[in-house]
Amino acid sequence: MSLLQYEQFMENLRAKLHLRNPRVVNVVSELYGMTIFIFMGIGIVSQYILSYEKMNTWIQINIGWGFALALSVLICSKTSGGHLNPAVSFLFLTQKMLSFPDFILYTIVQTLGAFIGAGLSYFVYYDQVVHYAGDLRHIYGPKATAGLFCSFPAPHLSNFRCFVDQVAGTALLTTFISGIIDKRNGIPNYLHSLLFGITLMTIGTAYGMNLGYPINPARDLGPRIFASFIYGTEVFAYHGYYFWIPVVAPFFGAVLGSWLYHLIVGFQIQEAKRVIVLERPTELQQLE
Amino acid sequence: MSLLQYEQFMENLRAKLHLRNPRVVNVVSELYGMTIFIFMGIGIVSQYILSYEKMNTWIQINIGWGFALALSVLICSKTSGGHLNPAVSFLFLTQKMLSFPDFILYTIVQTLGAFIGAGLSYFVYYDQVVHYAGDLRHIYGPKATAGLFCSFPAPHLSNFRCFVDQVAGTALLTTFISGIIDKRNGIPNYLHSLLFGITLMTIGTAYGMNLGYPINPARDLGPRIFASFIYGTEVFAYHGYYFWIPVVAPFFGAVLGSWLYHLIVGFQIQEAKRVIVLERPTELQQLE
Amino acid sequence: MSLLQYEQFMENLRAKLHLRNPRVVNVVSELYGMTIFIFMGIGIVSQYILSYEKMNTWIQINIGWGFALALSVLICSKTSGGHLNPAVSFLFLTQKMLSFPDFILYTIVQTLGAFIGAGLSYFVYYDQVVHYAGDLRHIYGPKATAGLFCSFPAPHLSNFRCFVDQVAGTALLTTFISGIIDKRNGIPNYLHSLLFGITLMTIGTAYGMNLGYPINPARDLGPRIFASFIYGTEVFAYHGYYFWIPVVAPFFGAVLGSWLYHLIVGFQIQEAKRVIVLERPTELQQLE
Amino acid sequence: MSLLQYEQFMENLRAKLHLRNPRVVNVVSELYGMTIFIFMGIGIVSQYILSYEKMNTWIQINIGWGFALALSVLICSKTSGGHLNPAVSFLFLTQKMLSFPDFILYTIVQTLGAFIGAGLSYFVYYDQVVHYAGDLRHIYGPKATAGLFCSFPAPHLSNFRCFVDQVAGTALLTTFISGIIDKRNGIPNYLHSLLFGITLMTIGTAYGMNLGYPINPARDLGPRIFASFIYGTEVFAYHGYYFWIPVVAPFFGAVLGSWLYHLIVGFQIQEAKRVIVLERPTELQQLE
Repeated sequence: MSLLQYEQFMENLRAKLHLRNPRVVNVVSELYGMTIFIFMGIGIVSQYILSYEKMNTWIQINIGWGFALALSVLICSKTSGGHLNPAVSFLFLTQKMLSFPDFILYTIVQTLGAFIGAGLSYFVYYDQVVHYAGDLRHIYGPKATAGLFCSFPAPHLSNFRCFVDQVAGTALLTTFISGIIDKRNGIPNYLHSLLFGITLMTIGTAYGMNLGYPINPARDLGPRIFASFIYGTEVFAYHGYYFWIPVVAPFFGAVLGSWLYHLIVGFQIQEAKRVIVLERPTELQQLE
Repeated sequence: MSLLQYEQFMENLRAKLHLRNPRVVNVVSELYGMTIFIFMGIGIVSQYILSYEKMNTWIQINIGWGFALALSVLICSKTSGGHLNPAVSFLFLTQKMLSFPDFILYTIVQTLGAFIGAGLSYFVYYDQVVHYAGDLRHIYGPKATAGLFCSFPAPHLSNFRCFVDQVAGTALLTTFISGIIDKRNGIPNYLHSLLFGITLMTIGTAYGMNLGYPINPARDLGPRIFASFIYGTEVFAYHGYYFWIPVVAPFFGAVLGSWLYHLIVGFQIQEAKRVIVLERPTELQQLE
Repeated sequence: MSLLQYEQFMENLRAKLHLRNPRVVNVVSELYGMTIFIFMGIGIVSQYILSYEKMNTWIQINIGWGFALALSVLICSKTSGGHLNPAVSFLFLTQKMLSFPDFILYTIVQTLGAFIGAGLSYFVYYDQVVHYAGDLRHIYGPKATAGLFCSFPAPHLSNFRCFVDQVAGTALLTTFISGIIDKRNGIPNYLHSLLFGITLMTIGTAYGMNLGYPINPARDLGPRIFASFIYGTEVFAYHGYYFWIPVVAPFFGAVLGSWLYHLIVGFQIQEAKRVIVLERPTELQQLE
Repeated sequence: MSLLQYEQFMENLRAKLHLRNPRVVNVVSELYGMTIFIFMGIGIVSQYILSYEKMNTWIQINIGWGFALALSVLICSKTSGGHLNPAVSFLFLTQKMLSFPDFILYTIVQTLGAFIGAGLSYFVYYDQVVHYAGDLRHIYGPKATAGLFCSFPAPHLSNFRCFVDQVAGTALLTTFISGIIDKRNGIPNYLHSLLFGITLMTIGTAYGMNLGYPINPARDLGPRIFASFIYGTEVFAYHGYYFWIPVVAPFFGAVLGSWLYHLIVGFQIQEAKRVIVLERPTELQQLE
C-alpha cells in the first residue's frame, strides 16, 4: 500500500461524506475546535493547580495555552475560520467577514464547546480532583478548585481594574491577529495559527497576573456554567457579580485593538512598487 | 574542496549502498528512528528524576520530548514515514496508508527500538543511577528508579481513569497529526515534524499529570520490558496489571481522534476556488 | 458574507483613510509600535516582581520580551520599519537607510511611546502595585517597585561595567539583526521579526544579569521619565547618575556590532554561482 | 532616504571591502562566529551560576545555548559554513566537504574563538564574579567558579562514562545535522540553523546531566585554556586528567552519528517519482 492508495481511499470517503451546507459545516467545525481548545486549556490549568504548581508552573500556562490555541485554530481554519472566541467573531462582524446570524451561532457554539471541553477535562482529571480536595468543592481557600474552570479575581482587585484588564488583553490579541492576517504584511497563511498562539503566549507573560488572561467570553463563561453545576451559583455571585466582566469587556477590547491597528498601520502601508526582481534568473534563461 | 565535491562523493557512495527492497529500508528506518527517539526521551526523564527534579523540571519534559519527536520523525519521514508509535501506524492501517503485514512489522520494530533506546540511555546514565539509588532498584518509594523507563500510576488513580487518560491523550495526538498532514490545510511538508513535536509538547502541558502521557504503546512497553530485567516482573503486576492500559488504550484513541477530525473537518473543507492570483506578475510579463 | 466582502469593505475604507505623507505615517507607526512593545514589556516585568517572582520567573522575562519585540516589529515593519530602538535607528542612519531628521523624530517618538506604554501598564496593574507595596514607592529595599519601569544596577556593579554591559548587549543585538536582514543570507522577510525576537530572548539568557538587558535608550529612558513622576528625581541620581549609561552606551554597541558583521562577514559572502538547478523539472517539461 | 539608498551605499562599500581569498574569508568568519557563540554561551552559564541558579535555571541553559548556536551559525553559514565545532568540521572532512588543511585551520580558530569568547564574557561579568566569590578562584566547593568556563565531572562519574557521554551526545548532534541538511529531506536552507539550535537544545534536556553537554572540542578546550590562566593547571589535572575526553570523544561521536544516518536512512531515501503535480494550474493555463 502507499500514499496513492491512502489518497484514493480518503478522497472516495470524502466524496461520500462531504456536507453541502457551508453554515452547518462552519458551526459544527467551530464547536469542534472550541471543545478541543478548552479541553486542552482546562487540562493545563488543572495540571497546574492539582499538582500544587509543581508539574506545571506558570511557563506551561503560557506555552500550553498558546500552542493549544495555535493547533486548535490550525485544524478548523479552513472551515469555520477558527475564531474560537466570540470577541474575535464580533470583530469580524464589524469588518463584514461574518454575518450577524453567523456571529450569533458562532457565539453560542463557542460557549457550548467551552462547556463540553470543561466537562471532558473534569472527567479525565476526576481522580486527581478527588485526591486534591476530597469531597470539598470550594471557590476560594486552600483546597479551592473552582479556579480550574474560570477566572476568580483576588479580593484586592477592583471590578473596574478587571474590566480594564480584559479590554487591554483582548485589544493586544486582536491588534496582533489583525497584523498577522493583513495580507500586506506578507505572512504566509500556514504560519498564521502559530503566530496567534505566540500572541496568546506573550500576553500571558505580560497580563496574566490580574485574572489569568481569559480575554475570551466563551472561554470564561462556558466552563463557569459547567462549574455552577458543581459549586452552585456562587461562581456567578463571587466578587460583586464579577462574572459578566470577562464576558463583556473582551468585545470592547477586540474592536478597539483591531481598528486601531487598521487605522494607524494597516490602511497606511504603501503598495509595493512593482520592481522586477529576478529571483530565479536561470529559469527564465531556460525559457527564453 | 567544496560543496560540489561533497555532493559527488556522497552520491557515489549512495549509488553503491542504496538498498533496493523498500520494506527492508522502511523497517530498519523505523527501528532506527524509534531507537533514537526513546534514547532521547528516556534521557530526558532520567535527567529529571536523577537530578532530583533540579536539572530538568517539567517544562523540559514537555519541550524535550516534543522536539525529540520532531527531530526523530524528521530524519526518517522520507523512508518509513516516521510513525514512531504503533497507534499511529494502526491509524494509517485503517486509512490504507499501511498494509497489515507492514503494521505488524512496524509495531515489532517500534517496540524493539524503544527497548534498545532505553538500554542505551541506562548505559549512558549508569553512574548517575548508582549515585542516586546505590544498589536499590525500586519501583516506588523515595529512591525509586523504575519511573525512568515507563509509566506507573499513583495509587489514587483508578485503572478506569488511566484508560480514559490514554484514549484522550492519543486522540488529541492524532487529531492534530491528521490536521497537520491534511493537504487541504496547506502546511508545507517540511513543517510537519516540527508541528508533531509541538503537539506532543502541548499535550504534555495538559494531560501529563495522570500518567506522564505515554500515549504510545511501544514507548511504554519497550522500556518496560527492559525494566523487567532489572526490577523483575513487578513492573507488569504493579497497580492491578496496569501495564496493558498504555499498550491497548492508545489504539482506540488514535482511531477516534483521527476519524473525528476527518468526519467533522477534513472531509468538509471546501475546494479552493480557482481564482487567478498573479503572485509573480513580472515573470509572466517576461514570458509573454 | 465572505472573505471577498471583507476584502472589499476594508479596501474601500483603506482608500478613504490612507494618509499620503510617508513621514507622518512612519512617525505615528513607530510611536504606535513602541507603545505596544513597552506596554507588554513593562507588564512582563510587573508580573515578575509583583507576584514575588512566582507567576513569572526569569524564563518569561526572556520569552515574553522576545516575542513582544517580534510581534511589535511585525505589525509596523511595513510602515516605519519597526526599529523600536533609537540605537537601531542610529545604526541605520550610518547605513543611509534613515535620514538625520527621521532619526531624530524616531528617537523622540520611541521615547514617548515607551513613556506611554509604561503609563498604560501602570494603569492596568495599579491595584497590584498597591497590594504589593501599599503607599510605599521605593527605588530599593524589600518593597521596591521602581524596577518595574527601568534598570537600577546592584551596588556591587561599577558604572564602567554597566557601560561595557550595554555596549556588549547592543552589539550582539545588531550583529544578529544585520545578519538576519542581509539578503545574501536568504532568510525570508516574514521570518525577520521572529528572529529578532529570538535574538533578544537569547541575549536575555546570556547578558541579563548585570542590568536586565535594556540595550535600548528609549526602553530605559521613557519609563524612567514616567517613574520620576512617582519616585522623584532619585531615579536619575541613583548609583552615581547611572541613568545616562543605558541611554548612551547602546549607540556605541549598535554601530560596533553591525559594522563588524558587515566587514567580517556580510561584505565577504561570495555571490552565488548561477548553477542551473531544476527544482521543478515537470513544469519546464510542460512548457517546452 | 530609503531602502534603495541603503542598498546602493552598502553595495558600494562591499565592492571596496570584499576580500578575494576565500580561505582567509572562511577562517576569519569561523573565528568570528565561534567567538560570538562562546561569548553568549559562557554568558549563559555565568548567569546561571553567579545568580545562584535563580536568574537562569536549566531551561535557559537549553534554550539559550540552542538559540546562541542557531544565530551564530546563521550569520556565518554563507562564508565558512558555520561549523563552530571541530568535530563537525572533522565529519565534513570525512565527507569531502572540507580539505585537511582547512580542517586544521578551522580547528585552530574555533579553539581560539572559544578562548576569546570566554575572555570577553569574563570581562563583562567580572564584577559579578568578584561579588560571588570574592578573591577565591576555586574549581570545586561552594564558591567554585571554574565551571563558568568548561566541564568538570562530579566525582561519582567515571572517565569511561564521560567518554561514552561525549560520544553519545555528539552522535545525536551529527545525526540530526546530517538529516537536516540532507537535501532529500527537503528542509529549506533558511531553517537549517534554527533546527541545529533546536537539536542542541533537545540534547541538553536529555544528556546534559553528566557533563553539561560540551560535545564540542573547541567549546570545552578554548575556555579551559583561558581558565588555566586564572585557576592554574589544575583545570587540566582535575579528575584524572579528564580534560582530554571532551576534546577527543566528540570526533568519534560526530563520525558515528552522521555515517549511521547516511547508511541507514540518507542513502536509502527513494528518488521522488516525477509525478506531475499542478500546484499552480492557473499559471500554466496562462502560458498555454
